[in-house]
Amino acid sequence: MMDKRRLEAFSDGVIAIIITIMVLEMKSPHGIDLASLYPMLSVFLSYVLSFVYLGIYWNNHHHMLHATERVSGGILWANLHLLFWLSLIPFVTGWMGENHFAPAPTAVYGVVLFMAAISYWNLQRAIISKHGQDSVLATAIGKDYKGKLSPVLYLIAIPSAFLHQWIAGAIYVFVALMWLVPDKRIERVLHDSRISK
Amino acid sequence: MMDKRRLEAFSDGVIAIIITIMVLEMKSPHGIDLASLYPMLSVFLSYVLSFVYLGIYWNNHHHMLHATERVSGGILWANLHLLFWLSLIPFVTGWMGENHFAPAPTAVYGVVLFMAAISYWNLQRAIISKHGQDSVLATAIGKDYKGKLSPVLYLIAIPSAFLHQWIAGAIYVFVALMWLVPDKRIERVLHDSRISK
Amino acid sequence: MMDKRRLEAFSDGVIAIIITIMVLEMKSPHGIDLASLYPMLSVFLSYVLSFVYLGIYWNNHHHMLHATERVSGGILWANLHLLFWLSLIPFVTGWMGENHFAPAPTAVYGVVLFMAAISYWNLQRAIISKHGQDSVLATAIGKDYKGKLSPVLYLIAIPSAFLHQWIAGAIYVFVALMWLVPDKRIERVLHDSRISK
Amino acid sequence: MMDKRRLEAFSDGVIAIIITIMVLEMKSPHGIDLASLYPMLSVFLSYVLSFVYLGIYWNNHHHMLHATERVSGGILWANLHLLFWLSLIPFVTGWMGENHFAPAPTAVYGVVLFMAAISYWNLQRAIISKHGQDSVLATAIGKDYKGKLSPVLYLIAIPSAFLHQWIAGAIYVFVALMWLVPDKRIERVLHDSRISK
Repeated sequence: MMDKRRLEAFSDGVIAIIITIMVLEMKSPHGIDLASLYPMLSVFLSYVLSFVYLGIYWNNHHHMLHATERVSGGILWANLHLLFWLSLIPFVTGWMGENHFAPAPTAVYGVVLFMAAISYWNLQRAIISKHGQDSVLATAIGKDYKGKLSPVLYLIAIPSAFLHQWIAGAIYVFVALMWLVPDKRIERVLHDSRISK
Repeated sequence: MMDKRRLEAFSDGVIAIIITIMVLEMKSPHGIDLASLYPMLSVFLSYVLSFVYLGIYWNNHHHMLHATERVSGGILWANLHLLFWLSLIPFVTGWMGENHFAPAPTAVYGVVLFMAAISYWNLQRAIISKHGQDSVLATAIGKDYKGKLSPVLYLIAIPSAFLHQWIAGAIYVFVALMWLVPDKRIERVLHDSRISK
Repeated sequence: MMDKRRLEAFSDGVIAIIITIMVLEMKSPHGIDLASLYPMLSVFLSYVLSFVYLGIYWNNHHHMLHATERVSGGILWANLHLLFWLSLIPFVTGWMGENHFAPAPTAVYGVVLFMAAISYWNLQRAIISKHGQDSVLATAIGKDYKGKLSPVLYLIAIPSAFLHQWIAGAIYVFVALMWLVPDKRIERVLHDSRISK
Repeated sequence: MMDKRRLEAFSDGVIAIIITIMVLEMKSPHGIDLASLYPMLSVFLSYVLSFVYLGIYWNNHHHMLHATERVSGGILWANLHLLFWLSLIPFVTGWMGENHFAPAPTAVYGVVLFMAAISYWNLQRAIISKHGQDSVLATAIGKDYKGKLSPVLYLIAIPSAFLHQWIAGAIYVFVALMWLVPDKRIERVLHDSRISK
């Protein structure tokens, strides 16, 4: 029997560190005029994109654990697996940003997003299988359109980065915007389950 | 329905990391005598200034969330928006310090302070709109003279950095000192609201 | 009389930072094609291995403190001693990975794993001596086969890295897999002790 | 009215990060044999010393806040002041270690220890003045021999680093050992105050 609070605190700590150390990739420009900031534009844009993605993961992770009651060893390792892929985001963000969204780094960025999505889905599955198909979380997730669509879109983005990197870039931005729309599902079901009691 | 405690813990984590990784910008001097510390004076001073600013933000954020009762998705993202701009402080601190407060870095430092102030104000507005104009927080903020004056002063400081960087520097120090004076407003109103109950 | 919660929170923080800063050792490749990732394979593999080891330590530490009721000054310093050796993992991971598992770095990696195992065992001993041989923790640990076998295997791995580094590598992977099998002992005994009450 | 828990959590976070990022100063050696570790000996020794000092500060801070009941704005800023000087420890540790305990870096290390000791004493004074001379904390601190002796010893160590660095080094080690002896004072008084109630 594990303590959900410590799992939350550890995940929060790791995500907070990941989201913050990305900024260490932004080295001071060599010049001292405003023009010397210009070559950093792609570094900055890739930082913004990754910041938003990590914010979405933190937000969704928060909701999912809110609806979790029991934590097993399997859930704990599924969670570490998700944190592993998220921890690679600063690396691919730096590589993509420093090279002005060159095709290969942009494709590899998509691979890490894809693996993070799969490991998130896997964590969700582990929690649901522990709580049952009738649980609050299972009802809240429902059809999980977004969760199923995102990895498919990443799989399209990865090869298309070699056609033109902005196709991949546009897909990454689209998926982020899709998730930014607040996910009312879990909140609503939680609310309903309280009323019905 | 979200958990205020986890929002606080995550924000604390991110601010603690930001305030600490700034020191990574302070590379060991090349020399081994005391004189080799001298060129680091501007790095050190910019570190002190940013440390104080982050301390002020943590302090005020702490008070604001203390008076917060409900957290929505909008508040969560307004909070991430604030953390985003705060996360850029180590970058601009390093650029400004390494270049001995050259005009452009000093101006860009002001831009980040301005954006952080705007996003803080935005977060405050999101919390008040959730709690109502009669809430403890709304009463505590009151006219919010400091919150309104700070971005105006930053807007003056930014162009004046190109006239002479010490004008901008003096404004940044002045705003910090203005906030360092303890903000009794929220404490007092919280106290009053308890007594009146 | 100390507060177990703050000990947990501090340890979680340190382990979360250690597990995350390792990724800072993964510098962006110089090239911009997929082939430029190839020389990073050993860096990546050593990162995965250390991530798993730190996950195991976090997991076991979590269980051990769950069964802990009292924290003394001795326990606190035994815990800091463990964190010290864990904090060296990013250093040896980087050295081993950058040098494609060269013999000396691979052996030194084993030395750090060995010292971490010894300091973990020492912490466990300090907690048991505080709680008594009849305590939940002492019963749960039982014979502690894994805890005794691991340092012996590291002692075999260290010199064998100079024969061939893959012997040591295989031993490190074997020990990690041995621990990944979920440790039901503490969970079961905790459960039994509740039933019997 | 502030929340002691959030002050503890923030301080824990900052100290955990400081103690961990020091290891980032330990760059991978250039060679791949054991001999290439030898020049890192002074880096390693200075890391151990600073790790122990930060462990002592965390430990004492923990005890002090345990006996604290009310947190004011003044206490909060006194705490940030302490964290500021602690945050400089990785910088001076790196400078001292990389230069094999050269006189100036070793003296500056002492300056940071001295400032940390003064700011700790200042924080302690702020907490006592808030709680009264009859409070648990004031009684527990008592004469505070160690707290008064440490800054005096640092003041002796700083100039003596220019005579011979090992005099300063020996004093730093001596002060650390003096504090490592468990500080039973607060524990005992807390215990007594409970019994007498």
